[in-house]
Amino acid sequence: MYTLYIANRNYSSWSLRPWVLMRTLGIPFDERLVPFGTAAQPHDFSRFSPNGKVPCLHDGSTAVWDSLAIVEYLAERHAGVWPGDPLARAFARCAAAEMHSGFGALRQICGMNCGLRVRLQRIEGALRTDLERLQALWQDGLRRFGGPYLAGAAFGGADAFFAPVAFRIQTYELPLPAAGLEYARRLLELPAMRCWYEAALEEPWRDSSHEQEARDAGVVIEDLRRGGHSAQNA
Amino acid sequence: MYTLYIANRNYSSWSLRPWVLMRTLGIPFDERLVPFGTAAQPHDFSRFSPNGKVPCLHDGSTAVWDSLAIVEYLAERHAGVWPGDPLARAFARCAAAEMHSGFGALRQICGMNCGLRVRLQRIEGALRTDLERLQALWQDGLRRFGGPYLAGAAFGGADAFFAPVAFRIQTYELPLPAAGLEYARRLLELPAMRCWYEAALEEPWRDSSHEQEARDAGVVIEDLRRGGHSAQNA
Repeated sequence: MYTLYIANRNYSSWSLRPWVLMRTLGIPFDERLVPFGTAAQPHDFSRFSPNGKVPCLHDGSTAVWDSLAIVEYLAERHAGVWPGDPLARAFARCAAAEMHSGFGALRQICGMNCGLRVRLQRIEGALRTDLERLQALWQDGLRRFGGPYLAGAAFGGADAFFAPVAFRIQTYELPLPAAGLEYARRLLELPAMRCWYEAALEEPWRDSSHEQEARDAGVVIEDLRRGGHSAQNA
Repeated sequence: MYTLYIANRNYSSWSLRPWVLMRTLGIPFDERLVPFGTAAQPHDFSRFSPNGKVPCLHDGSTAVWDSLAIVEYLAERHAGVWPGDPLARAFARCAAAEMHSGFGALRQICGMNCGLRVRLQRIEGALRTDLERLQALWQDGLRRFGGPYLAGAAFGGADAFFAPVAFRIQTYELPLPAAGLEYARRLLELPAMRCWYEAALEEPWRDSSHEQEARDAGVVIEDLRRGGHSAQNA
């Protein structure tokens, strides 16, 4: 039985990727949620993760500590992580890897914060470039492999890598052409994504640096979180 | 026959990764080197690469446009990219993936510039943290799998991902414990690495942003490049 270590559902975009993949493919695992802690008292992830970061998958005594390496580890052991067709598989891996090391402005400016709704101050420069590339990549995959998922008919590793982007589109109301918004909506409606989202809204933790990111990005117009602290205590 | 698109050998750390892997494993390919161009006139990589970046591997009509996806694409088709042992393979993938998305301070402050020797101003904060993590990761792999490479007896994908770090250690004289320096030296002495390095020294191109990175990092004490322009024309 696998154990998957994750952090706060509201914030941890890297945790979401393998989690939503395993849930959607029906790969059983025990979940250990360890919240980030506070800036003054961060929780020490190095006791379960070699690089001190989440997510980290434990399989017996083997620790697999990077989101993309986790996906490849699972792909060796379970069907459906990558498409069977070699061309679609190459595309899916490129898409996931591009997300893994790229889209820096999107990730930095529009940090994942599932429960907030934020009106962005502006979309320009590197953020605009990232959104244009995102749209081109999604369109390319949806057209070439026939949809409704990025590399074909079934949800897989590439979609899991863009799952946090779907939450960002919802939070920041990112402007994309209809096909992109429709694909993001499809991700948000997956049972595993709805489950993650609902649990995120119930979390009691507010992390000041993540909350500040959202305020830096624009005007917070709604906070849908129901858990614990009020947003005023952030 | 594969075609591998790369950019300037002196600067392009991402290009080096699949190049040194393919050369060292004896996987034949045609090389297309397209230099970055200048800030005023950058070369348009999007005519051969979907995300406009290097490296990009073409296999017939299939374009594989991310360094890690290229490594996985090759791993499906050639022996030796990842170790045969599942535990070593999981480690190798984690190490490569951690480099792919991480070590941001090391990559940003100590940009690859093969031909320069730079005395760093200081090593602190995030750069120090990156070097400590680098050393821990290398030590872990070398000990667990017996060396002399990161995941065992043979050079593979994880080593290829750290090949640019070996050039950075040489350029910036980065302080690491002996085992780390020895491993970096082993990478530098690979025939493919020596070939890349010699060709880098002959390149005529100087890119002002990359040259500025080196000056921002510290004092340039030596420029070993023999090609074309003098460093003064940078």
